[in-house]
Amino acid sequence: MSTDDNQVLIVGAGLIGASIGLGLSLRGCDVVLRDTSPTVLALARDVGAGRVPSDGRRLAPGLVVVATPPDVTIAEVRRVLDEFPHSPVTDVASVKAPIVAGLTDASGAQRFVGGHPMAGRERSGPLAARADLFEGRPWVITPSRDTDPGAVRHVSAVAATLGATVIEIDASAHDEAVAVTSHLPQVAASLVAGRLRAAEDAAVSLSGQGLRDVTRIADSDPVLWAQILAANADPVRRALVAMRADIDDLLGALTALSSTPAVDLGARAVLARVIAAGNEGRSRIPTKHGMAATVFSTVAVRVSDRPGEISRLLTEVGAAGVNLEDIRIEHSLGRPTGVVDISVLPAVHDVLAASLTEGGWVVVE
Amino acid sequence: MSTDDNQVLIVGAGLIGASIGLGLSLRGCDVVLRDTSPTVLALARDVGAGRVPSDGRRLAPGLVVVATPPDVTIAEVRRVLDEFPHSPVTDVASVKAPIVAGLTDASGAQRFVGGHPMAGRERSGPLAARADLFEGRPWVITPSRDTDPGAVRHVSAVAATLGATVIEIDASAHDEAVAVTSHLPQVAASLVAGRLRAAEDAAVSLSGQGLRDVTRIADSDPVLWAQILAANADPVRRALVAMRADIDDLLGALTALSSTPAVDLGARAVLARVIAAGNEGRSRIPTKHGMAATVFSTVAVRVSDRPGEISRLLTEVGAAGVNLEDIRIEHSLGRPTGVVDISVLPAVHDVLAASLTEGGWVVVE
Repeated sequence: MSTDDNQVLIVGAGLIGASIGLGLSLRGCDVVLRDTSPTVLALARDVGAGRVPSDGRRLAPGLVVVATPPDVTIAEVRRVLDEFPHSPVTDVASVKAPIVAGLTDASGAQRFVGGHPMAGRERSGPLAARADLFEGRPWVITPSRDTDPGAVRHVSAVAATLGATVIEIDASAHDEAVAVTSHLPQVAASLVAGRLRAAEDAAVSLSGQGLRDVTRIADSDPVLWAQILAANADPVRRALVAMRADIDDLLGALTALSSTPAVDLGARAVLARVIAAGNEGRSRIPTKHGMAATVFSTVAVRVSDRPGEISRLLTEVGAAGVNLEDIRIEHSLGRPTGVVDISVLPAVHDVLAASLTEGGWVVVE
Repeated sequence: MSTDDNQVLIVGAGLIGASIGLGLSLRGCDVVLRDTSPTVLALARDVGAGRVPSDGRRLAPGLVVVATPPDVTIAEVRRVLDEFPHSPVTDVASVKAPIVAGLTDASGAQRFVGGHPMAGRERSGPLAARADLFEGRPWVITPSRDTDPGAVRHVSAVAATLGATVIEIDASAHDEAVAVTSHLPQVAASLVAGRLRAAEDAAVSLSGQGLRDVTRIADSDPVLWAQILAANADPVRRALVAMRADIDDLLGALTALSSTPAVDLGARAVLARVIAAGNEGRSRIPTKHGMAATVFSTVAVRVSDRPGEISRLLTEVGAAGVNLEDIRIEHSLGRPTGVVDISVLPAVHDVLAASLTEGGWVVVE
């Protein structure tokens, strides 16, 4: 029996499953939905994520996407590999090596392609689904040597159809990567924010923009993150051990400095080295269009808090024929003024600054 | 001999000293500048930060501001306390307890008020000076029980004149506060960024907005930060010791999870607790106008990369009569589109979303 290349079965109609369904339905695919919860299933159908299978009609999906919670992913993938012996199957769990390892002995394992669409939202469930959730986002796939190349092509094509950038990488390499680029930053942000709990009110009043940036993701959901960190326990543990070794170096230097009145040049060098290592690591993070982080120049403009003030400013930026690459608003403490940092290509910095000054704006940089 | 209340002597004409001079000169004060470098002194005068003292004319400053590098602050404060036996003296060093302690036995110590204007820029030197550098920023003062109340009033008045918000706090409490709100976040950002140095290119390509936010301040100057951390060695050490204890808890939980196949509920609870503590700490950070972090609602809009697109969007936000509280641009990976998150008061969220949708924008949230 052959499969219907235009039919996609989605098992699990939460945020990710329903968003995939919505995006594929809009592009003319025949999306069939399953969920253990009749309510979730009905909601997903109602938002346009796909249809509920009708009794008696045989399914022959060209692809099955298992988008269940990660703790049942392995069991569900096994079940659909059995049920649809000709269909490629993929999943969406955010930690990959345990899933891949748990499926190597499954019958039809070569039709399974591990996947991790790297998109999410603060909200969950099918009502939060968006057809463009994956637009411009990485979609990791983790085939092994034994994986059927046709299955890999099929999953890649679906991810690309949804606007994602497909990144093929080994499952363990993926888990190590997210430990460093996602899980460690989350832990660090939470730990820094956690220190504020016991701080005096006066101390907290000294908070600046740096603290706000570092701790923004500390608002994340504790239950969700306990699951993620637990699923990736080993790579996260290794990243944290390395971070703790750096902290121990710093503590050695700080202890030397606080106990010895004499100037300890070696200790200061340890401190500088940690900050310099951060400079170097930071410079590797790709920015918009994959350009290096340093290529933009900032025009800083003081604005008042009147309604429409920032819009008025940005209208003039547009009128100057300048494309802004990024924008940040720095709020002043308890005052109705702030500074807007406009990132532009260095070549247009002076032109823009002059044009805004002429327009009556206070350009402070 | 009495002092001239309208005369301010600034010792050290770098970024902070020249900015204070510029702001006070614009407000009609007689600002007199000193600097060990004739070049810096001439530049500061040329940007309008004040005048160079003329030979033979006696100074009688109503306030002396010592804005030298921190390693010579104590010696300079002692010198001016001697030279001007009736003038209040303040400083601008970012770590306060060592300065205050180093001056308790100085003659005239009761006329010294420790200060820390919490403003800075990426650039340094008098050419980077701005009259409005302190506008809306905290300006900490750290008088002791013995400090002359008249000196405290004078320093507070000058800080307020420059638009700063004066915060009076004990010197040690200040140093503990900045260890947690400024120095620990810097170290954490640098350590997280530092882990990217050894990462594979494919791993770095998985970087998302969370990593970018957490590591933004990892671009900071290593030499400057080595000085700051060294000057505040003890409080920073205590903050890092507490953070390391949290990391040890996490490592215990992660080790339990990675070594035992059985579900370890206790270990997951440790992970969730660390994230929950971060939620709680994060909620204490004051935002614009001192409002709680949670009161704003986000309207997320998809935009293309055409020049003027964001300006056009924000013009429509202004036209809708809605005041934006904050804005963030999330760039998509290697693509000319992004999502603009517009923070507004919750009451106007739906109005704005409807208005933008009507205007043809893709509101994704």
